[in-house]
Amino acid sequence: MQTKHKVGILGATGMVGQRFIQLLEDHPWFQVTWLAASDRSSGKSYGEAARWKLDTPLPASIAALPVSPASPENAPSIIFAALDTDIARDLEPKFAAAGCAVISNSSAFRMQADVPLVIPEVNADHLALTSHQNWNPPATSARRGYIVTNPNCSAIGLVLALKPLAERFGLRAVFVSTMQAVSGAGYPGVPSLDILGNVVPFIRNEEEKLEAETQRLLGKLEGNRVIPLDARVSAHCNRVAVEDGHTESVSIQLATKPSREEVLDAWREFQPLREKNLPSAPLQPVEYAAAEDRPQPRLDRMRGRGMTATVGRLRPCSLLNWKFTVLSHNTIRGAAGAALLNAELLASQGKLLPSVSSS
Amino acid sequence: MQTKHKVGILGATGMVGQRFIQLLEDHPWFQVTWLAASDRSSGKSYGEAARWKLDTPLPASIAALPVSPASPENAPSIIFAALDTDIARDLEPKFAAAGCAVISNSSAFRMQADVPLVIPEVNADHLALTSHQNWNPPATSARRGYIVTNPNCSAIGLVLALKPLAERFGLRAVFVSTMQAVSGAGYPGVPSLDILGNVVPFIRNEEEKLEAETQRLLGKLEGNRVIPLDARVSAHCNRVAVEDGHTESVSIQLATKPSREEVLDAWREFQPLREKNLPSAPLQPVEYAAAEDRPQPRLDRMRGRGMTATVGRLRPCSLLNWKFTVLSHNTIRGAAGAALLNAELLASQGKLLPSVSSS
Amino acid sequence: MQTKHKVGILGATGMVGQRFIQLLEDHPWFQVTWLAASDRSSGKSYGEAARWKLDTPLPASIAALPVSPASPENAPSIIFAALDTDIARDLEPKFAAAGCAVISNSSAFRMQADVPLVIPEVNADHLALTSHQNWNPPATSARRGYIVTNPNCSAIGLVLALKPLAERFGLRAVFVSTMQAVSGAGYPGVPSLDILGNVVPFIRNEEEKLEAETQRLLGKLEGNRVIPLDARVSAHCNRVAVEDGHTESVSIQLATKPSREEVLDAWREFQPLREKNLPSAPLQPVEYAAAEDRPQPRLDRMRGRGMTATVGRLRPCSLLNWKFTVLSHNTIRGAAGAALLNAELLASQGKLLPSVSSS
Amino acid sequence: MQTKHKVGILGATGMVGQRFIQLLEDHPWFQVTWLAASDRSSGKSYGEAARWKLDTPLPASIAALPVSPASPENAPSIIFAALDTDIARDLEPKFAAAGCAVISNSSAFRMQADVPLVIPEVNADHLALTSHQNWNPPATSARRGYIVTNPNCSAIGLVLALKPLAERFGLRAVFVSTMQAVSGAGYPGVPSLDILGNVVPFIRNEEEKLEAETQRLLGKLEGNRVIPLDARVSAHCNRVAVEDGHTESVSIQLATKPSREEVLDAWREFQPLREKNLPSAPLQPVEYAAAEDRPQPRLDRMRGRGMTATVGRLRPCSLLNWKFTVLSHNTIRGAAGAALLNAELLASQGKLLPSVSSS
Repeated sequence: MQTKHKVGILGATGMVGQRFIQLLEDHPWFQVTWLAASDRSSGKSYGEAARWKLDTPLPASIAALPVSPASPENAPSIIFAALDTDIARDLEPKFAAAGCAVISNSSAFRMQADVPLVIPEVNADHLALTSHQNWNPPATSARRGYIVTNPNCSAIGLVLALKPLAERFGLRAVFVSTMQAVSGAGYPGVPSLDILGNVVPFIRNEEEKLEAETQRLLGKLEGNRVIPLDARVSAHCNRVAVEDGHTESVSIQLATKPSREEVLDAWREFQPLREKNLPSAPLQPVEYAAAEDRPQPRLDRMRGRGMTATVGRLRPCSLLNWKFTVLSHNTIRGAAGAALLNAELLASQGKLLPSVSSS
Repeated sequence: MQTKHKVGILGATGMVGQRFIQLLEDHPWFQVTWLAASDRSSGKSYGEAARWKLDTPLPASIAALPVSPASPENAPSIIFAALDTDIARDLEPKFAAAGCAVISNSSAFRMQADVPLVIPEVNADHLALTSHQNWNPPATSARRGYIVTNPNCSAIGLVLALKPLAERFGLRAVFVSTMQAVSGAGYPGVPSLDILGNVVPFIRNEEEKLEAETQRLLGKLEGNRVIPLDARVSAHCNRVAVEDGHTESVSIQLATKPSREEVLDAWREFQPLREKNLPSAPLQPVEYAAAEDRPQPRLDRMRGRGMTATVGRLRPCSLLNWKFTVLSHNTIRGAAGAALLNAELLASQGKLLPSVSSS
Repeated sequence: MQTKHKVGILGATGMVGQRFIQLLEDHPWFQVTWLAASDRSSGKSYGEAARWKLDTPLPASIAALPVSPASPENAPSIIFAALDTDIARDLEPKFAAAGCAVISNSSAFRMQADVPLVIPEVNADHLALTSHQNWNPPATSARRGYIVTNPNCSAIGLVLALKPLAERFGLRAVFVSTMQAVSGAGYPGVPSLDILGNVVPFIRNEEEKLEAETQRLLGKLEGNRVIPLDARVSAHCNRVAVEDGHTESVSIQLATKPSREEVLDAWREFQPLREKNLPSAPLQPVEYAAAEDRPQPRLDRMRGRGMTATVGRLRPCSLLNWKFTVLSHNTIRGAAGAALLNAELLASQGKLLPSVSSS
Repeated sequence: MQTKHKVGILGATGMVGQRFIQLLEDHPWFQVTWLAASDRSSGKSYGEAARWKLDTPLPASIAALPVSPASPENAPSIIFAALDTDIARDLEPKFAAAGCAVISNSSAFRMQADVPLVIPEVNADHLALTSHQNWNPPATSARRGYIVTNPNCSAIGLVLALKPLAERFGLRAVFVSTMQAVSGAGYPGVPSLDILGNVVPFIRNEEEKLEAETQRLLGKLEGNRVIPLDARVSAHCNRVAVEDGHTESVSIQLATKPSREEVLDAWREFQPLREKNLPSAPLQPVEYAAAEDRPQPRLDRMRGRGMTATVGRLRPCSLLNWKFTVLSHNTIRGAAGAALLNAELLASQGKLLPSVSSS
């Protein structure tokens, strides 16, 4: 059996950290050897420190791992980061400066010019930005670390659905109204008194992220920067009483108005990673559900083991061209799975650094 | 104490029928004296026939009323109708032909040219259409009955919010994505397996109704017909796990782009019924909730005793002009309360016929 | 109009504090003139400090009140306390020592020998314990304050249902399994990820409180202490996805096995406060719902304006004698309304001290 | 590869029928070759007839199968039945008379003296009752079919938890209060208006079944009948807003009062099927969750691929001996999986008849 890359997880006790652990169990390329969380967890075993909230058992080997302090000493050179924005802003550069490949799910650096914001099926070429990063102190000759980010959980499903259309027909405008699951807010996150039998039509900073990240993800790499797509995007973000899975109502304006069949073809034929054999890549990144009342979070979020974006209800829009619904799993495709797929893509390109701890 | 109008309810055992009973308890102008429901209920007392699902007690006087057959003999001349569309299409004309004022919540005749589709605050003048109706058989000299309808539950809140803006600034385009409560589907309605922890992005015919009714409600009466407003309306309709209260994410294009203050003023100053003293009219038909995360169905649906549409989150739209959220109670303002307010308006105009049963 | 007692609320911004404000709006005997909350709220107006979570509007006069520091200087002499246990243990004695009547909803002193734990319909005579309290420092000649408590939200409905049966038939054993609403845990309280589509079969210390408080409430005052009822009580406490209203499955062993009619009579005839005309006392403290599938929290919690305990499904138990379901509103009858009724009883007995601030 | 038994499903379009299809996909011993449902589905393909409600895809080979009429002609000789009681009472004997092994999830014949009600880990010996059945018309020499049933979904988890204790310590009395998932009522089943934010403390006939089936399952086979266990069982059955997974609060009286460790040992060592290698049997039929707030339906229902009953919160009961919580998946372990395990046990005993259709 081949040797696996040793990987670490920053923010391992949170909801996304737990998803990383779940998705990395039995991963063919990566093995979790290091976990870090907040200071109050440090020193405990992971089993003691974490309140495991997933419906598969916490792997015994992970439960026994100690929770390390969140600093790069003794950390492996590949780090999955699931940190709150403020903490990420402080910690991720330290790991990059120490020579780590930081595969981050946080929003802290997503819009920084030299940090790639990537969905492998959408804009893998943006990864080239990493060569422009410089986190090391001037005098250091150490191996160069870098940060790669994935988008906000509300942006990934949308952009997967938009990409094949933007490519073939030109995208001019997007209207999106989201109905987002509570797991997107982490744990404890949304109080039950706020969401039982209720809708909260506000998620702080979410609309801004969804609009800007969509334009950047669909943008064009030119030299050392990304020119965002010149399409207007208007987002309404709402929280609903759903555990997992973000549902989005979308209307779009395309430059050349394609037929219904052409739209469906574009989605079906969208398989940019087919040759790469990345372990977490779904066979079909965008799948059309033909039933009139789909996609639905409870029934469709686990398609492609949680990595497929399901579209449905394609119909003409009286205001723009076409409208449809898109759904994706917000903590798999929208968070931990997104970062993992980024790491797999980097590994397939030989861009993952040998682990510090194995040297 | 003044004599009250005797009124009847068609479809009295359903969810909207129950709301009629609740809202008419102790009503200053109307008294329920007659209830009709499907044949299998006929002959029982209402208390036996109905499964009461509201959180106020079934009034004892109503519980004791017999459930009558659904035919106009012995019915009072003012009828509130809460029927399924197919049944309404058959029954409502019979009651109108018998000389009744049929105040209908069903969709059967909303788009018929000579039937007014009315929200009192929005287009009271459309009631004039009733004089063009002719339900009586040719040879009959009987008193002329008529049908008046109120809109779909998803349209009322939206149109209340749009009307003051359309009036002052001209309305060109509307994008609306709804999150609708399960009570909108009646009882038994939405199976719990479909909606617990889920979103269903489809409600049959709802988007079509919401689009067409919005244009008709904001349209102009010309002679014996209504010219729909020439504004594009695009709707996405979704069902969510909320008991009561439809929440809608809205973006609009206005002809003259007003400032934020001008929009807020238009809403605040919108009090077209102020002088009329209708018992069910809210002081403020459209109320702005200033908190950043409002309106919410659990907290705001009962404003104005369920008759106020609450708006919030007014902010610029990058695609059209302004965006906001609107919420209204779907079985009060959106159904029984809507019909009741129509009846009150008709009564205040002297257009309610003396009750057959009192003659 | 008669002068109202001035009252203050400790812990005014929490869920129970908000219920106090709601229930005291337009109260005929009491007027809120003073609000206190944690230090970080102090100095703000209540409208700024509180995130109002009830579905009736925050009264404007309350919104404008300043939030005072939580110390007895300048506080009125009647204090409703809605504090966390630890804080209550520290603060309530200070207010009592300063001469206040502290009407407390917290658990801190419920089991202290000289502090009455009271439900007015159940054990009003236990209030005599207040004369044994001594919170003042030895050398003080000040007016004597006291603390009166009401039970845990899970105990009140149960004990209301048990009291008339214990009285008439003798109570030997109680088995109770609860399904408790999330509002019982306050705000933010239960994370939505823990309760959506879920049951949590554990509420810290709840079973212990429910068992012990039931025995004490049904106990007998002897001199300066209460002899708990010698009946075994076994409780299972569960949290379910309900906003308001605790539902409890109950089996009981009675000393003389009464007939079904005798049990129903005991509940119906239980009206110990009838002559007292307390404003918040329900006409019927225990009401039997005859329908086979009641009581239900959504439909029955607001009976008696939230102050009635609804029982239903009375049927023989194959293990003990009878079994039934009881439901009561946990933040009205089970918290703020319970304390308010205690205060009304004290006022009717002339035991409320004249307000410090009015002197 | 070995030949699989051909099996058919009666009631294939319902919720339990769908679970049968899901659990039988890629089953090593059985292959679904025949599906029957109500007349209005007959003639369609299964894909057209069924509204698939599970979160794994409908297997393409099943979607293509025709829906057959519900009569034994052309049916295979092994039939899984997921029928409503009334229909089962009529149809199951016809299939048995035609020589089929009818593995039934319905309640129609569970309490009939010569029909075994079986949980393989609990009372496999009761299967001997099948030899006393006689469904064939007198003159027929055909192969003898039979009916085997599994318990109600609320009984299985409970009885799994009770069996090892009854065996070792003697069981005298059981108090159980359930919180049952909506999927137990099938589709459309529970209306969302009845269960959102609510508890329904009533499920028709459920308490009776739970009590009687528990006694029968733990009873003793004597000759051609089962002597029910002489232990009093008292059940309260409640419906809660959970999709899948029944949670039950249980108190028990044991003849010899064991220690906590002895109870835990009894559960841990309960592995009666270990040697049999049945494909659907969980490694651990009863698993103890040590965390203070477990088991919970969302987190624990899928243990053992939905076939494990999870117990937790073992603590002394002040009324009986011990109390605990038990949880099991109601449509897997409690329905389709229960029947499947029965079939596997019969197959391992050589009691499954060769398929009619393969002859």
